[in-house]
Amino acid sequence: MRIIVIGANGTIGSSIVGALEKDHQIIKVGVKSGVIQANISDPVSIEEMYKKIDSFDALICAAGDGYFGPLSGMTDANFRVSVEGKFMSQVNLVLIGQKYISPKGSFTLTSGSLANDPVPFAASVSAVNAAIDGFVRGAAIELENGVRINSVAPGVIEASPQYFPYFPGHIPATMHQVAQAYVRSALGAQTGQTYSVGC
Amino acid sequence: MRIIVIGANGTIGSSIVGALEKDHQIIKVGVKSGVIQANISDPVSIEEMYKKIDSFDALICAAGDGYFGPLSGMTDANFRVSVEGKFMSQVNLVLIGQKYISPKGSFTLTSGSLANDPVPFAASVSAVNAAIDGFVRGAAIELENGVRINSVAPGVIEASPQYFPYFPGHIPATMHQVAQAYVRSALGAQTGQTYSVGC
Repeated sequence: MRIIVIGANGTIGSSIVGALEKDHQIIKVGVKSGVIQANISDPVSIEEMYKKIDSFDALICAAGDGYFGPLSGMTDANFRVSVEGKFMSQVNLVLIGQKYISPKGSFTLTSGSLANDPVPFAASVSAVNAAIDGFVRGAAIELENGVRINSVAPGVIEASPQYFPYFPGHIPATMHQVAQAYVRSALGAQTGQTYSVGC
Repeated sequence: MRIIVIGANGTIGSSIVGALEKDHQIIKVGVKSGVIQANISDPVSIEEMYKKIDSFDALICAAGDGYFGPLSGMTDANFRVSVEGKFMSQVNLVLIGQKYISPKGSFTLTSGSLANDPVPFAASVSAVNAAIDGFVRGAAIELENGVRINSVAPGVIEASPQYFPYFPGHIPATMHQVAQAYVRSALGAQTGQTYSVGC
């Protein structure tokens, strides 16, 4: 299978690549790294990426920027860091990618546990994570040619101990658990699902 | 109680006003109608609205534009109609309004059943409805001075038969049911909740 991994060199992305590269052809995409560079917050850059890659069977996005800060001082501009960096970027990967993906292909987006399990300073991230899961449910019933779409919702992860203080009582997911959720989406048969990892 | 109703002359808004005006002081806001005019897609207009109103105990937003159209032809610009018209507008009502609302006040936003129960042509609305519910969960744990926030998620409603063909098998909610969900949020004590109406 020919699988695009966006954010392939990131903490989660490199685990996904590790889990899939033995049996599949991985096309690594990053802003500055990877075989192909793309800025997914720009629809023009997304379209160019798909044209370069030509055909593919699965896209996994493990890239996205979110804004963290207290609600009391949060502005429209702060909030839009998450909207543009994690939500519209992944939406556009699908809106544009649906023209390029192979029949029976799949999109796997990244949302996160904050959608349903909030912590302070993360209101915009809770919103966009939930938005991604809602988009996945809405898009799943319309994608044509058997194309599927799911999201993976990681909680705090083992490889990012710098976030542990913000998630008291949360048990970090292992990178194996995280990577396997993406594998489950890309190689499985379900659609419209959100696979939660960690708690 | 001094209650702002945004979209007070709309189908849902007028039902909310009808349910609350006997016992409360209602400040009706609309784009062109109402006692106060405001364009909630513009943060400057929102700030001006709050300055004119001065103090208030509850804000209920029953206004929002969404884009409906097939996913196969949906563009970034189409999708943003929903993001700006229903999601960022309501987020900004809260981000700005938290500075003006009375202690123990409440915000009640409008999301919708499409967040979890999608129909074709509504992927962007599923996304933004879910985003609003996610934002409510995230903001609820940070709002200060006992201020609460909830959303109401109506399905198809009795007063809008023009939408019935798009919601086969959905049982329209009565306007009484819809209005009471907003009353429950504004006059109740819960926070971070989404009250679903209809199915």
